[in-house]
Formats: sequence, C-alpha cells, structure tokens
Amino acid sequence: MTLPYLPAQWTKPMPARPVVAVCGATGAVGREMLLCLEQRAFPAAELRALASARSVGVQLPYAGPGAPASGQLTVAELTPESFADVDIALFSAGGSISEQFAPAAVEAGCVVIDNSSAFRMEENVPLVVPEVNPADALRHQGVIANPNCSTIQMVVALAPLQELCPIKRVVVSTYQAASGAGAKGMTELEEQIRALQAGADYPPKAFAHQIAFNCIPQIDVFLDDGSTKEEWKMVVETKKILHVPELAVQATCVRVPVLRCHSEAVMVEFDTRAARLAPSLEDCRRALEAYPGVIMDDDPARQRYPMPVELAGTDKTYVGRLRTDDTVPAGIAMWVVADQLRKGAALNTVQIAELVL
Amino acid sequence: MTLPYLPAQWTKPMPARPVVAVCGATGAVGREMLLCLEQRAFPAAELRALASARSVGVQLPYAGPGAPASGQLTVAELTPESFADVDIALFSAGGSISEQFAPAAVEAGCVVIDNSSAFRMEENVPLVVPEVNPADALRHQGVIANPNCSTIQMVVALAPLQELCPIKRVVVSTYQAASGAGAKGMTELEEQIRALQAGADYPPKAFAHQIAFNCIPQIDVFLDDGSTKEEWKMVVETKKILHVPELAVQATCVRVPVLRCHSEAVMVEFDTRAARLAPSLEDCRRALEAYPGVIMDDDPARQRYPMPVELAGTDKTYVGRLRTDDTVPAGIAMWVVADQLRKGAALNTVQIAELVL
Repeated sequence: MTLPYLPAQWTKPMPARPVVAVCGATGAVGREMLLCLEQRAFPAAELRALASARSVGVQLPYAGPGAPASGQLTVAELTPESFADVDIALFSAGGSISEQFAPAAVEAGCVVIDNSSAFRMEENVPLVVPEVNPADALRHQGVIANPNCSTIQMVVALAPLQELCPIKRVVVSTYQAASGAGAKGMTELEEQIRALQAGADYPPKAFAHQIAFNCIPQIDVFLDDGSTKEEWKMVVETKKILHVPELAVQATCVRVPVLRCHSEAVMVEFDTRAARLAPSLEDCRRALEAYPGVIMDDDPARQRYPMPVELAGTDKTYVGRLRTDDTVPAGIAMWVVADQLRKGAALNTVQIAELVL
Repeated sequence: MTLPYLPAQWTKPMPARPVVAVCGATGAVGREMLLCLEQRAFPAAELRALASARSVGVQLPYAGPGAPASGQLTVAELTPESFADVDIALFSAGGSISEQFAPAAVEAGCVVIDNSSAFRMEENVPLVVPEVNPADALRHQGVIANPNCSTIQMVVALAPLQELCPIKRVVVSTYQAASGAGAKGMTELEEQIRALQAGADYPPKAFAHQIAFNCIPQIDVFLDDGSTKEEWKMVVETKKILHVPELAVQATCVRVPVLRCHSEAVMVEFDTRAARLAPSLEDCRRALEAYPGVIMDDDPARQRYPMPVELAGTDKTYVGRLRTDDTVPAGIAMWVVADQLRKGAALNTVQIAELVL
C-alpha cells in the first residue's frame, strides 16, 4: 500500500486538547486504548469510539479527560466522514480497515496513528517506539505507524544494548499469547480448554489449529521464503526502528497457550570489528536497568525471571535470564516479556499520540 | 558421580532372551517403557517392575514377551539385591536412585541403561541415540546413558545435517511439555487450569511457578553462569553424542503449558571454512527426509508443520518450518517436535536395549 496522497510536510498545528477518535474501539486493543488514555489522563477535548456498523450503540467505559457525563462512550460507525473535526485517530481494526479509512482521515487533517501493518514499511511513514526513536514521530506526514507487538518489546530491550555497542545479529524465538489474535483468540483458548477437559470438541476458528495445550509455529501467513509474515515483520521493523538497515535478524514466531503477554528468547551478537570492546555482562545489565522502558527481573537464586501470568496489565518491557552467550565472540542471551496488548499495541499507540502533542 | 568400579571391558555375554528390570516402573517414563517393550515385542524372558517401597503391589499392564499369564506385572521393591539374575536394567527413577542402585546392578553383571543424568557425562559411559551413534553403545562397561529428552530430538534432526556438512553452531529455544516433570507435571497442568477456570487457587508443586497459561524460562536448577542445568545438558550432551567437542550450542529451555511432546526452534550454522560448499536447502531437506529417525512434515501452503497435540504416542522426530537462515553465511532454521516421553526417554532406552542384544 503506497500513500502518494501524503503531504510532503505536515503543517497543521495540533491543539493542546485534541479531539481523539479510536477506530476499532470494541476490539481487544481498542478497549485497551481507551483504558490507556484514561489511565494516562490523555488531555483529549473529546473522545469518539468508532467501529463497524455491527457494533454501533455499544457502550464502552471511559472516564478520562473529555469523557461524557455518563462515563460511557457510545460506539458510532466508522465511515470516511468520521474525521471532519478529529485531530488524532488511533486505528486498531486491522490492515484493510486502515487502508480503507486512513486516507480519508489524513485528508480531513487528522493525524493517524495506525496499529495495523498496512503502512509500517512505507518510506514516508515513521515507525515509532517512543523510548527508542521518538524523533521519528515528529517527521510524520499524517500517518505514524505503531510496530508489531513482538517487535516493540524486543526493540525496547535491544535499544540500550545497541547504544552500548553496535548489534550485528539477533536470533529470536517467540512465545506469543493467544490475545495476539484479539479478544477472540483469548476466548478460544479458554473455551477450547474447557471443552477438551469436558471431553467435547472445539474446532479452531481464531487459529489455524487447536491452541489448547499446543504450540503453533505459524503466526500470520507464509511468505515465499518459508518464513511467516510475523517473522518478516520482526526483521524489517527492527531494522527500521533502530535505523540499522544491515542488522541481521533471524526470527521464529510461535503461538503458545498463554492468554496475554508475549515472551521472547533473544540472542544478541555484538559487532566488535571497529576496534570496539565487547560490552561485559555487567555493562549490558546496567544499560538495561537504566533504560526507561525496561524493568530487570533477573535473580536466578530466587527463581525470578519475567513470566506472562505475572505481567498482564503492565506497561514496561521486562528482561531476565541475562547471560553471556560464549558461542559467539561477543554476545548475550536474554528473556523478554511484555503485555503485548499494552506496550505491544494500545500503550505504545497512546505514547505516540503523546509525542504528537 | 564417578564410576570407578566399572570393569575395563564388559565380557559377560548377553542371552538372546534376557531378564529385564524396569526401575521406576510406576513413573510416566517407566509406564511408557513397559508400553514400548510390549509394542516392539522386545524378546524378554521375564520382565520385572521395580519401584520404591511405596508402590509395592501396584499392578502394571504388560502383555509382551515374558509377561505373566495375568497380563499384569506386580511392582516389587527396588533394592541392591534386585539384580541377582537380571540381564538388563532400565532405570528411570531420577538421578539419585540411579546413583544408589546402578553400582549394585553392574556388580551383579547387569547392563544398566540409565535415563537419568547421573552418569551421562562420565568418560566410560556411552551416551547413545541409536539412530545417531549406535556403535558407542557397544563400547559400554556396564552402564549406557540415555540422553536428556530435549537433546535426543535435536540430535536426531542435527545428525543428517552434520553428515552433509560440519555444523559449527546451533542456537535452540525449547518449548517443553509439562510431562517433562513426570506424571505429576501433567496432572498439575490439567488440575491447575481447572482450578483457575473455576476461580480457585492451585499453588504450584511440580513446578517453581504456575504453569497454566504461562511460560517458565527455567528447567532444572541454575548454574553459576546463569544458564540452567537443562540448557547445559543440551550443550554438553550434543557434543558428546555427535563426537564434535568444538560444536557451539546456545540453548534457552522453557516450560510451556503443553501436556506432552517437546518443540524446539533450532538454528543451524554450517562450517564452510574447509572449502566446503554450503548445503542447499534442498540438500538439507533430502538428508532429513532420508534419515531413519526423522519424518518431515513441512508444507506451509497447507499450514502443515509438526505440533505437540498431534504427536503424542509417536516414535519419530518430526521436522518442519525448514528454511534458509540468510543471516549467516550458511545456515538453516527448523522446527523440531517429538514425544519426549517416548523418543526422548522410554523408546530411546528400549532402542538402546535392542542394540545391546
């Protein structure tokens, strides 16, 4: 999808108290966006919840700035005309909805922050993780893209290491939660387990195969080279966000029967060619500890490391199992967990909106 | 644990129809051993089921060669005197039981095939995967060790590639089933999910943390270098089985809420220094397809790849998601799944017993 209609420069000033639309408000990420906006007291003059015709009239709780007296937003239908007086539109309704409606929003003068993969690799669309590349957000031409969930948490953990010493190669295997497929993914995992334990059938709908008690080594569609689109996203998005086009990323993305929070086993190889000293394990630990978006939870003696069941609803990227990888000249291994509905999606989108303000 | 009492050479002939003892017969692996012996019609003259005093009198079904008329073995207590007229003892009752009773068994002239980690790295104890290094089994001095479950399935998939071109480095992330912690691990996963879905508590017992809906990045205890003993096992055992002491293995071992069958994301880097051509992806595919222990299940167009829920009770190592890793000069990535109670433990032990015959 190309965006030839984007203005060369975005000149429209942003009001201090913008009108904000959440497109796809009834989805798992959409609801989490409303929660993030409320919790962070995002200074909206007004909030609009938009979704497909099917959801019109649904009430969604929202008590933050710009909330109606009822504390409930009433969902309206998302149409090309929805954006006349909207300043910021947060999209999270899938790539085709973004492709269909984002152009109208931009033409109406609205800054689009898009959680889908539709525009992420467009040259004139910044791909932003606010801790990592905030300056990119300010160079937008109407559309700013929110990276893929599994990319965001990895990049937050890579950025402080990359500041320490250039990274040459990353090998990552993911353990991705059912909610990566939306609310229906979570429901399917819970109901399928119930059905199986009761001796009943529960054919897969949200996933290609049974997710209960299983690992599915496929997320998104397959590409010609045998990788999946999710794996490809981790490769190309990481390069774009870190501004290192030559960075090598090898990814295997796997769905596991976890409700919420993605986990990642990440192996990092540093590039020590340019007479750079390899950072020590303690250098890496200190850099991670000092990084705003990271919380270290790494105490093997007390069996402490980040785990998905403990981190639902949290905002940071948690790192543990930090250790030297002595199978390469200079490398470390780590275990990275984050709530992918929040930092991997809703929260990161709202953080971008805060940058735009 | 050293085994100084081992004879320099094992000279005792093995009868064509040996008396076989299964030590730890009531455990998840022990029961699977009885099933494997029966299914493969292992030519036992007699089968003895041994376990701790607590299990004495328990009846275990067994209808293979040497079975009693009842089709049930009655569990007897494992003592140092259990081995007087036993020819082969299959141990699967944990490392400390092996350390306690294997010496007496060897002294009684019994060949011990040990599924624990007690003796695996002993110099005079072969570590055997029958497809990979069968000749090693014949050089035993009374004790043959069965490798760790996660090692076995990886090594079966690596061996045909190693024949094609020397392997330099392997990076592996595991997705290991609850039954790796025995029958109690499986029970805990099922009952904990039931409890949580009913709104009740179910504190962890078999695992350090909640396993339901979770990923636990720790299997076995931590070592000083920040790796776990399970990860260390994958490193040292792989080198020993493949006879490549310089092979680099970087492992991250993770417990996932799966009942049975371990999965592994495996990245292989070939060593092409010695003027070797890098094997093509099709070379690798053909080598894997032709290998006796491997079944390829790799058809992205039909969303086919190995998955744990489909492979419980199977005997082979299943490989899918085979693709080029173009982030290294010569490499491939693959997804490896096997039933770790069978190929990873019981079956491999019985296959070793068949070699000894």
